Amino acid sequence: MMVAANATAQKLLTLEDVMWSGNNYYNLMPENKYTAWWGNQAVETTADEVRDLKTGKTIVTVEQVNKCFPEKIAFSGHNFSFPLSKEPVVMLTKGQRRAMLNFHTGQVLLDVTLPQNAVARDFNVESKQTAYTIGGNLYILTPKGESLTVSLDGSTDGSDNIVYGQSVHRDEFGISKGTFWSPDGHKLAFYRMDQSMVPNYPQVDITKRIAQTYADHYPMAGETSHQVTVGIYDVDSQKTTWVKTVGEKDDYHTNISWAPDGKTLYIFELNRDQNDCRLVAYDAETGDNLGTLYQETHEKYVEPQNGLTFLPWNSQKAVMQSQRDGWNHLYLLDVKTKELTQLTKGQWVVQQLAGFNLKKKSVIFLGNASDPRRRSVYAVDMKGNITLLGEADGVHSVKLCDDGSQLLDSYTSPTTPRSINLVNTVNGKAVNLLTATDKWAEQGYQIPEITSGSITAADGKTPLYYRMVKPVDFDPAKKYPTVIYVYGGPHAHNVDASWRWGMRGWEAYMATKGYLLFILDNRGSEWRGRDFEQATFRHLGDEEMKDQMKGVEYLKTLPYVDADRMGVHGWSFGGFMTTNLMCSYPDAFKVGVAGGPVIDWKYYEVMYGERYMDTPQQNPEGYESSSLLPKAKNLKGKLQIIFGYNDPTCVPQHTLSFLRAAIDAETQLDLFTYPGDGHNMYGRDAIHLHERITQYFEDYLK
Amino acid sequence: MMVAANATAQKLLTLEDVMWSGNNYYNLMPENKYTAWWGNQAVETTADEVRDLKTGKTIVTVEQVNKCFPEKIAFSGHNFSFPLSKEPVVMLTKGQRRAMLNFHTGQVLLDVTLPQNAVARDFNVESKQTAYTIGGNLYILTPKGESLTVSLDGSTDGSDNIVYGQSVHRDEFGISKGTFWSPDGHKLAFYRMDQSMVPNYPQVDITKRIAQTYADHYPMAGETSHQVTVGIYDVDSQKTTWVKTVGEKDDYHTNISWAPDGKTLYIFELNRDQNDCRLVAYDAETGDNLGTLYQETHEKYVEPQNGLTFLPWNSQKAVMQSQRDGWNHLYLLDVKTKELTQLTKGQWVVQQLAGFNLKKKSVIFLGNASDPRRRSVYAVDMKGNITLLGEADGVHSVKLCDDGSQLLDSYTSPTTPRSINLVNTVNGKAVNLLTATDKWAEQGYQIPEITSGSITAADGKTPLYYRMVKPVDFDPAKKYPTVIYVYGGPHAHNVDASWRWGMRGWEAYMATKGYLLFILDNRGSEWRGRDFEQATFRHLGDEEMKDQMKGVEYLKTLPYVDADRMGVHGWSFGGFMTTNLMCSYPDAFKVGVAGGPVIDWKYYEVMYGERYMDTPQQNPEGYESSSLLPKAKNLKGKLQIIFGYNDPTCVPQHTLSFLRAAIDAETQLDLFTYPGDGHNMYGRDAIHLHERITQYFEDYLK
Repeated sequence: MMVAANATAQKLLTLEDVMWSGNNYYNLMPENKYTAWWGNQAVETTADEVRDLKTGKTIVTVEQVNKCFPEKIAFSGHNFSFPLSKEPVVMLTKGQRRAMLNFHTGQVLLDVTLPQNAVARDFNVESKQTAYTIGGNLYILTPKGESLTVSLDGSTDGSDNIVYGQSVHRDEFGISKGTFWSPDGHKLAFYRMDQSMVPNYPQVDITKRIAQTYADHYPMAGETSHQVTVGIYDVDSQKTTWVKTVGEKDDYHTNISWAPDGKTLYIFELNRDQNDCRLVAYDAETGDNLGTLYQETHEKYVEPQNGLTFLPWNSQKAVMQSQRDGWNHLYLLDVKTKELTQLTKGQWVVQQLAGFNLKKKSVIFLGNASDPRRRSVYAVDMKGNITLLGEADGVHSVKLCDDGSQLLDSYTSPTTPRSINLVNTVNGKAVNLLTATDKWAEQGYQIPEITSGSITAADGKTPLYYRMVKPVDFDPAKKYPTVIYVYGGPHAHNVDASWRWGMRGWEAYMATKGYLLFILDNRGSEWRGRDFEQATFRHLGDEEMKDQMKGVEYLKTLPYVDADRMGVHGWSFGGFMTTNLMCSYPDAFKVGVAGGPVIDWKYYEVMYGERYMDTPQQNPEGYESSSLLPKAKNLKGKLQIIFGYNDPTCVPQHTLSFLRAAIDAETQLDLFTYPGDGHNMYGRDAIHLHERITQYFEDYLK
Repeated sequence: MMVAANATAQKLLTLEDVMWSGNNYYNLMPENKYTAWWGNQAVETTADEVRDLKTGKTIVTVEQVNKCFPEKIAFSGHNFSFPLSKEPVVMLTKGQRRAMLNFHTGQVLLDVTLPQNAVARDFNVESKQTAYTIGGNLYILTPKGESLTVSLDGSTDGSDNIVYGQSVHRDEFGISKGTFWSPDGHKLAFYRMDQSMVPNYPQVDITKRIAQTYADHYPMAGETSHQVTVGIYDVDSQKTTWVKTVGEKDDYHTNISWAPDGKTLYIFELNRDQNDCRLVAYDAETGDNLGTLYQETHEKYVEPQNGLTFLPWNSQKAVMQSQRDGWNHLYLLDVKTKELTQLTKGQWVVQQLAGFNLKKKSVIFLGNASDPRRRSVYAVDMKGNITLLGEADGVHSVKLCDDGSQLLDSYTSPTTPRSINLVNTVNGKAVNLLTATDKWAEQGYQIPEITSGSITAADGKTPLYYRMVKPVDFDPAKKYPTVIYVYGGPHAHNVDASWRWGMRGWEAYMATKGYLLFILDNRGSEWRGRDFEQATFRHLGDEEMKDQMKGVEYLKTLPYVDADRMGVHGWSFGGFMTTNLMCSYPDAFKVGVAGGPVIDWKYYEVMYGERYMDTPQQNPEGYESSSLLPKAKNLKGKLQIIFGYNDPTCVPQHTLSFLRAAIDAETQLDLFTYPGDGHNMYGRDAIHLHERITQYFEDYLK
């Protein structure tokens, strides 16, 4: 598929146009609508009001709301939400303020303000209580504005070493928070992490009068890890019960979910070796182990990423996700009988559980059954019959209404900048609410030709998808410098069926400068099933590079690709890939820019690192052969490594060790670092960074 | 003056040829002789023996010595010295072993071995005792091999915080060690430094399994400084007396010297503001203050750099050095009457006190009376009559014989790779022992034309000296890319009358690559007197840059200098100058490489920094205007900053802060760092570094 370049366009895209943080980016963004549900009524929020999405009729205005709060709070429509489906109640969230208002009666149902430094805020609409953390401690703010201390038995032993109520296990295993309200909001399950035994990586803050280190507990692969326990705080009795887990102290406690009646807590427990996962039920009153409901093992690894979601019409059955058959699919688990029924099947993956159609008793989910690059909307009934909802093409995001009979579907596709539709989940029919136009084209910018296709992986059989961005004013008789952009690691992909095949703004910018860009999702990346990902197990980098070299092979067959001017760029895992490609195939690439790279997996953290590599003790050969330190001697082309000086993810030890190795091997490379920045650069720093990256190719690849 | 290029030469110099650490450097070094004195007899040491320098007659062989030490020590002739002028005794120093042997009788007079980790070793030949330190503690090894603990009252409270017997005040004020034996070796004066109140700069060791910080107490300008006291340990009574200084706790205690009778200790004491220096005498038994013998103040600063050296023929009078009249000169101080007599005078400086001619009662010194670029040898009698000794041209180093009637004079001059002469200090006549030849020329290397001359400083009157290195195969009709190499700070110079005008090997290497090199010693540098140096007081960088721009002005008058291709390179203060020039005169320089730069003097240490800048509290305008952080926005040319990742001198905060400032100002620069290296790179790292520096000019200036 192709997006035709505007033949008469003359304006050239700048970084200010194409980067999120660029000054002109928002002017060039496709039009959007801010939509939400009030029960089963679709609404649109603006700065001034909330209105019915179909009729345009005003539901509640900001002026009306602000009148009910004497002090000048100045809520905007974008602060509004409608948590109660059947009541005319608006939830107002602004800064640390949480309020609820009946906008028919004008009655203020809640008005509390969290402490200024409260973070990890978690509101429960039933009990109107808000869990929050300050430092290492966990608190609850009651609807009356009282603060309860949850940390260990009401003491405040939370600290940098002992952390309550925050996300644990470095956000792996689908974990993104540390508090979990019971459905009725009277009990709060929470994580307690003891990381006192984990050494601090010496991160340095150079903005102090005299530079200073600050604490950053970082468990490295094979080293001592932190220890997590799960508590259940009863708000009424103000007592904490500790869940009586039986595994090792450094096991992973993931995907916590509550039974609908709030009496049972479910935890997916994974051993440190990550090859044995058990779903265990606990009594929420006593913390007692009620038994293992499900167990999954695999010789490589098992990765639980989703908790249980109970059927709204049957509290004995919950939807569970697993890639046990090689593809991530939906299962129905009977928590009493432990019976497991597979709901979806096939050589494609469920990407997200979206909700339920209560009337039809079907499960709504996102999946890529029609094309691995897509994320389409489907319903599956309890018999496994699958229905496509709305347009198959594109990458969709959905919000379901209260009874699940309709959904708001926002998607982009290779040719569609944005389309918002109201989709009937019974018959799949859609009403279009917005179709955005291409502002680049409208404003007369030169737009490169963007295509997607597939080649065969180095295993000789698996199709791999690529995106190609051709230079503007493309002339097939010319030869162009070519840059491969790469990520290549698990849990991510670069090529999908979204607007312009997922092209990043920088690629368009490079195309205006006369480069051809090529982006290939190698084996190891996401949306392609378990074995596709696990091909890289215990030797990260090898298969990924073989696949990328298939891409290079393909590029060399194209008469307009200049094989003598090939470059490569990537960040994080892509920085590892870039550095690795520059060192492993030194004759293939003239120039590389690697960002925040992993250099040696022994410097990476336990959770992610050991999943794919096991420990250095278990897999010394794999760590040795995947390390880039011995490869520094092979460097031949121009390589620049860039990293955030305060990167807490790929700590600076990676890049610095590689510098030392290159110096010792008497090879040269270039370097830059962003003091104060972490694993990625944001805001103006991102513009600065891409100016650098571009300049490096301009200096050495052109 | 000019060194003619060899017109028929074809070989091109490489970094391996011209760098100290290069594989071919020693093969191309001018021939040398290892000379020493045995009393009044000049000797030459080789690996195998020591022989009379004039007659070539063997004095003692290594074989002969090694026989007297049954275990295989394998001393080499280069381990030999002759501390006793009238006795056939050889002192043997190898590793931690200290031995003395009467080589006529074969009697071993001393044979001790210091502990493996002993450092700061200080041997006294009279008492045959060796002071040494381990960790923060100070010990003495007696001739019998017993170890005495000197640290506070025999305890070992020495640590990273409390340091005994080591150099203090960051080696400023002429301080290079922390122990000072009384002439008879029965008393040991020593420094004790308490730096517990000085914060550690967070230096990171990336070679640990998980990167770790290590202690590096670094007092920054205007911040709390360390506190130094002076103890006197009596070896016989094993008791320490503390010198009863009366100043502030953070005063400087410098240039410790003993009276010939060992009863009095002299200390040049300087206030932290460095504008009031007092020479105070202390009773070595009681530590009591015996009075101030001399005081020197100056509105800018006073910098004591040399202790007292007593006349061998009059223990009441000592030679002292001061630049109180604007030029560093020799004075005679009567320690009883406090009478001060100026010995040398004139608009030139004494560079070093070398010793005494006992018969003539004259003082031998090195000075630049005939040309500021020279270091020639002179004698001055007690009436101030000055005699030149040996050749005036060149830069000389001398060793005097016991009675000072002769000296071994080794010098190089712009046209002389090395000349070693035996000089009669009475009549100045010299006997040549060695005249080395130019191995570059002999081996057929292409050698650039090297000249020196002067231009007028930005003050409109002061001559400044430069060195110019022309590209090989120089054609005056062509235009050459030109690189200014700069240091520019106090206590250093780049241009002198040594071999090839002091040209650094890298300059010759650059000349073979077609660059013209220009090196100018601006105001602020050494050997030119007090006011020349102090022109920069409280606003480092400004006058220095004005002078360098005079150099640029001069270069632009030369038809063969390409004014559109000017580069600049410097390290340390020269890195400060390079970055400053790139930011302050962005149109003058296309390319710069700055090494280990100072970026903001508030990040530099107290002793050096406050001398030239006062404190940030006293001189906020000066710190603000000399800071390069606000200037980062002016960057236009290509600038690469390189620093040792573990630089304890210009700590990484300098460069990292500048990166942040440039990023915030949306300007670009390049970076490299050498993990594990300090303020300078040595060995193979130095080669790697200069390959980098060269490549940067090749990439962007050519």
